[in-house]
Amino acid sequence: METLIHNVTIYGEEAPFYGYMTIKDDTIQSIGKGDVSREMMKGALKIDGKGKWLIPGLINTHGHIGSSFLRGAGDDLPLQTWLQTVMWPNEAKFDRETVLAAAELSMIEMIRSGTTTFLDFYHLAMPDVAELILDRGVKGVLGRGMIGLCSKEEQDQKLQDSLSLYDTYHGADNGRVSVVLAPHAPYTCPPDFLKRIADAANNRGILLHTHCAESYKEVEDSYKEFGMHPIKQLESIGFFEQPALLAHVVHASEEELEILSKNDVRVSHNLISNLKLGSGIAPLPAMLEKGITVGLGTDSTASNNTLDLFEELRMTALVHKGVAMDPTKITANQAFKLATSEGAKAVGLSDTGVIKEGYKADFVLIDPNKPHLFPNERMHSHLVYAVKSTDVTDVFIHGKQVMKDQQLTTIDQEKVLADCRNQLSKLM
Amino acid sequence: METLIHNVTIYGEEAPFYGYMTIKDDTIQSIGKGDVSREMMKGALKIDGKGKWLIPGLINTHGHIGSSFLRGAGDDLPLQTWLQTVMWPNEAKFDRETVLAAAELSMIEMIRSGTTTFLDFYHLAMPDVAELILDRGVKGVLGRGMIGLCSKEEQDQKLQDSLSLYDTYHGADNGRVSVVLAPHAPYTCPPDFLKRIADAANNRGILLHTHCAESYKEVEDSYKEFGMHPIKQLESIGFFEQPALLAHVVHASEEELEILSKNDVRVSHNLISNLKLGSGIAPLPAMLEKGITVGLGTDSTASNNTLDLFEELRMTALVHKGVAMDPTKITANQAFKLATSEGAKAVGLSDTGVIKEGYKADFVLIDPNKPHLFPNERMHSHLVYAVKSTDVTDVFIHGKQVMKDQQLTTIDQEKVLADCRNQLSKLM
Repeated sequence: METLIHNVTIYGEEAPFYGYMTIKDDTIQSIGKGDVSREMMKGALKIDGKGKWLIPGLINTHGHIGSSFLRGAGDDLPLQTWLQTVMWPNEAKFDRETVLAAAELSMIEMIRSGTTTFLDFYHLAMPDVAELILDRGVKGVLGRGMIGLCSKEEQDQKLQDSLSLYDTYHGADNGRVSVVLAPHAPYTCPPDFLKRIADAANNRGILLHTHCAESYKEVEDSYKEFGMHPIKQLESIGFFEQPALLAHVVHASEEELEILSKNDVRVSHNLISNLKLGSGIAPLPAMLEKGITVGLGTDSTASNNTLDLFEELRMTALVHKGVAMDPTKITANQAFKLATSEGAKAVGLSDTGVIKEGYKADFVLIDPNKPHLFPNERMHSHLVYAVKSTDVTDVFIHGKQVMKDQQLTTIDQEKVLADCRNQLSKLM
Repeated sequence: METLIHNVTIYGEEAPFYGYMTIKDDTIQSIGKGDVSREMMKGALKIDGKGKWLIPGLINTHGHIGSSFLRGAGDDLPLQTWLQTVMWPNEAKFDRETVLAAAELSMIEMIRSGTTTFLDFYHLAMPDVAELILDRGVKGVLGRGMIGLCSKEEQDQKLQDSLSLYDTYHGADNGRVSVVLAPHAPYTCPPDFLKRIADAANNRGILLHTHCAESYKEVEDSYKEFGMHPIKQLESIGFFEQPALLAHVVHASEEELEILSKNDVRVSHNLISNLKLGSGIAPLPAMLEKGITVGLGTDSTASNNTLDLFEELRMTALVHKGVAMDPTKITANQAFKLATSEGAKAVGLSDTGVIKEGYKADFVLIDPNKPHLFPNERMHSHLVYAVKSTDVTDVFIHGKQVMKDQQLTTIDQEKVLADCRNQLSKLM
């Protein structure tokens, strides 16, 4: 079936343009400037964009959607207190039902804020999350989180679970689900376990994803234990001999960034989470200068406390200017690319994040007729510095409309909120 | 007339509580916990809060609402290029009509994002802005901006205009408009002009407000010209012998902060604007440790690019944690106070910014029944880390409802947007 979306202003790499787009099944078929011809209006399912902005959907390159109930459960705490009194005791109580309810709540939040692809890194119920993604029409990159502080048998079981997730779901529904291998971190996975995971990834061409260099303490501890920076340690065990995506990389010098650049390792920049936990501010301008592929990630609502990538986008463009005392650092267009096309590359998808023929029809409509977006000609600026995620009105993923005029079409929001309340009452 | 707002969860200093509030004319008359009695329901005009959150309205302690058309006109530029190619040539074209249209647009944006008091620092049409404020039911603190790089006659005229604004409007409608004296900055006002302004403020007990120590270059230039930091220079000419509010104070050492603390000088912290212009990050935690009164300000949409204090609030709580690498810096409750009660003190108002008997009825209702606010019991956290300004549904200023279920009651939004478009077409 062909769909024609007309009367829209489309995000273009250099400048926005007024025009239209056709999609066939899950793919962008054509893009044109100006009004559509009478000929084109025949046959196709027509959607009048009513002068809205049409932009690529945002890509969330790191998160943990199963823990969304912990939003606001503990803020402003030192890291160890937060882990010991908030995260661990609560997460220990989570079961399949909790995780699925929280995951669906997170999907609602992400659709509503214009995210069309998200990476989810979690240790519970991942096959169920994959099924939920397929059913609800959203798009996910899944990694079964593996902590290696356990017996070799348990380690092997976790790796086996991960490979089984890969075998069952990688590439499902024409790429709407993909799967990565996700060891938790160099400080929670012994080197031989990391090596076995890396070998498995290498054998099957699977993307590796792990947390790395998030806190200063982690780096210090790595020097104590291994005599080197965690990035250097990962390199030393061959972790970068296949594609890898590192979340955070807050503490890294030129030397470590050079290792990432040389090995084409990607980074998920989680600015808000890093700020909130007091981890620090990652050297994003230096990463980009070295040509490293960087996407943006929200991390979980336990340390953000939203899944709103427009917030992440704006903060990324603003904070690095202030830190560098240079207003030319991270321009609006650079930031927008990190949240879209670069994010897609970071999570291993080569056909989303851009409005382009042949790419997946993952896109979002935004209503620019708002006081806070006046004058609304300045789309490229406003998308970063002024838009609110609540300006998103319509969301399409693989050509399917999952939100229409701010109404979800595949998820019953009231039912999910009621489920969440039930699940939460079990925990508290 | 008495109004009863019931079925609300009210922001409390320590914790939120379920209850009700009565207001009489422009003032909060009583606050109670729990349900209202049948007796109380008699007589009064009743508003069912439907379980919403009732919080003090936010206080914007620094801005320039007349320049809102410049939102997104030039981003990511070095400061001098931005001033010379964007700000000055555009502002030179502004007239009374442009400023009033932009001011009303700004009022809409501020009401919609839960701001009940704003400070406006501008050089054009300030009596008209005062009239607009009085007519539209909003609340403003006005300063006629004075640049002193002109003849003594022109300086005197500017000061005369300012004092006339004060005489006519200060305290109007029971304090809904107040007036400050607003020399632009130490680097644009010669010391003798600053001294005359300070003397005039002293004679009549008027609050002084100026930009200070915004950029590193400004501080360097002050050392070159006066042999001292701008804060020290202001002190040396007696500027702090009456109440004063300084916007920015990005570059200040312990010594200068000590001067501010000793003289009870207030600071307007404009984090987003300071980040966006690459000015740097003000030492907010050190200011608070010294007991300095600090409020939050958006500055103008030309350097922000919104007037959304909830954004400012969240960024303030987040960024300073990251800079200090300490998640306990600027807690949610601290940040919220900066945006409310402390902001009120900063702009010289002693009876707003708190939900308390005898205070002005300046408050906001927020709909917490949103996926991004689940679990919605955690109000104090969510108000800072998760709420979006678009969750604001109702706004009351001096007891009058200026927004009801997201509909403005005193401003015709469509007409204002049409006016703005007309005015903009004159400029471009």
